[in-house]
Amino acid sequence: MSGHLAIIGTGPGDPGLLAPRAAAALADATDLIGYGPYLDRIPERTGQTRHASDNRVELDRARLALHLAASGHRVAVVSAGDAGVFGMAAAVFEAVDADPQHAGLEIEVIPGISALLAAAARLGAPLGHDFCAISLSDNLKPWPTVLARLRAVAEAGFVMALYNPISRARPWQLGAAFEALRAVLPGQTPVAFATAISRADERVEILSLADADPLRADMRTLVMVGTAATRSIARPGGGAWLYTPRSAA
Amino acid sequence: MSGHLAIIGTGPGDPGLLAPRAAAALADATDLIGYGPYLDRIPERTGQTRHASDNRVELDRARLALHLAASGHRVAVVSAGDAGVFGMAAAVFEAVDADPQHAGLEIEVIPGISALLAAAARLGAPLGHDFCAISLSDNLKPWPTVLARLRAVAEAGFVMALYNPISRARPWQLGAAFEALRAVLPGQTPVAFATAISRADERVEILSLADADPLRADMRTLVMVGTAATRSIARPGGGAWLYTPRSAA
Repeated sequence: MSGHLAIIGTGPGDPGLLAPRAAAALADATDLIGYGPYLDRIPERTGQTRHASDNRVELDRARLALHLAASGHRVAVVSAGDAGVFGMAAAVFEAVDADPQHAGLEIEVIPGISALLAAAARLGAPLGHDFCAISLSDNLKPWPTVLARLRAVAEAGFVMALYNPISRARPWQLGAAFEALRAVLPGQTPVAFATAISRADERVEILSLADADPLRADMRTLVMVGTAATRSIARPGGGAWLYTPRSAA
Repeated sequence: MSGHLAIIGTGPGDPGLLAPRAAAALADATDLIGYGPYLDRIPERTGQTRHASDNRVELDRARLALHLAASGHRVAVVSAGDAGVFGMAAAVFEAVDADPQHAGLEIEVIPGISALLAAAARLGAPLGHDFCAISLSDNLKPWPTVLARLRAVAEAGFVMALYNPISRARPWQLGAAFEALRAVLPGQTPVAFATAISRADERVEILSLADADPLRADMRTLVMVGTAATRSIARPGGGAWLYTPRSAA
């Protein structure tokens, strides 16, 4: 039996932002593996087995996926957004690297629209020029590393997308990150909270760094921090577009 | 007349990676505006006008789009990849900001799968943890700024996606970037050249930073520079997967 393992990014949530290749791979799978709430967004199919799990067992999930694919199943490992951006792709390759018998498996990574890109589109064009993505989770790296990275990119003039800003287990990190950024960036630097973008409960708030309140974020929020050059344009109907000029230096 | 302006990312090229919302907006447009080769990838439609242009006239293109939308046309401004990542979105909002009568226009940005994400998926999971995207073009920012940013993120441990690595008008920048990175990163740091990903002439090469040759890149190449932690896994069929462990610090 020859199995197959697809690592799939399902985009921000709107089915209109799911790539046709990803939809086809989801339909073709015998087994879906992923974090429960992400699997719940995928339409049910008869004969397909779902392996839902908690959100901090990525490596167990990756091993299960390899095991099933090696046994001949057609497995889809599912991440929201893009699986390569703080999603399941790295965990799967860590598991392959630890167990080289799996290196010969047929593995395919299908990219998706990441939260970063979905949030940027909803806001206007905040990424405009050089940007970076940083996870605020200190589960896998020490907090001082996170802080050092935030300072380095703020000083160097990058727009920042902050992933995993806050959770019940990590309640203080986003506030500490804002504090660190206030030491480097002007207080009027725009900070956008983009929550559940493209889904029914989508919410967008734009504040200044001086006023940025960590409690505006939840687990579904992508926090975007502009640069000193990032500008907003008021929209007659209310709200604002946020953009970073391409020439920002 | 009420016009409409959609700013659309058409993904890396494979129609299977074009979001349904983007496809619908392309089909719905009366006018398509963009860089000629990108427009050429979109199926022709009767009654639709194409405004193809050279690749360094973004602001002219943005003004034309606003003018047509303000006159009641349904305009689609087209970028490859994602329009918010070194694409047309920022240019359009610069033009809106310069001419506030356009702030009331119905504008919609539809995200797409950026070259960064498509290349990462093709390579495995090189983005694994914190990463950044930098344009090597010095058309819109001074070269010393580019160099300073490269050094800052290399020292801070980010994976790097280098956009606009080389062109006829900018032949030396990628070599100078590698030179600067060699002063900071180990010579064995993986450098991937991902060209025309998902298209018929797709090409992938993985070298070490010590051996990275700028001439492997052309205008369709995304250059990905790993960190000291980025690893490769040989594939029995030839080639390798590249991934960055999630815990890289």
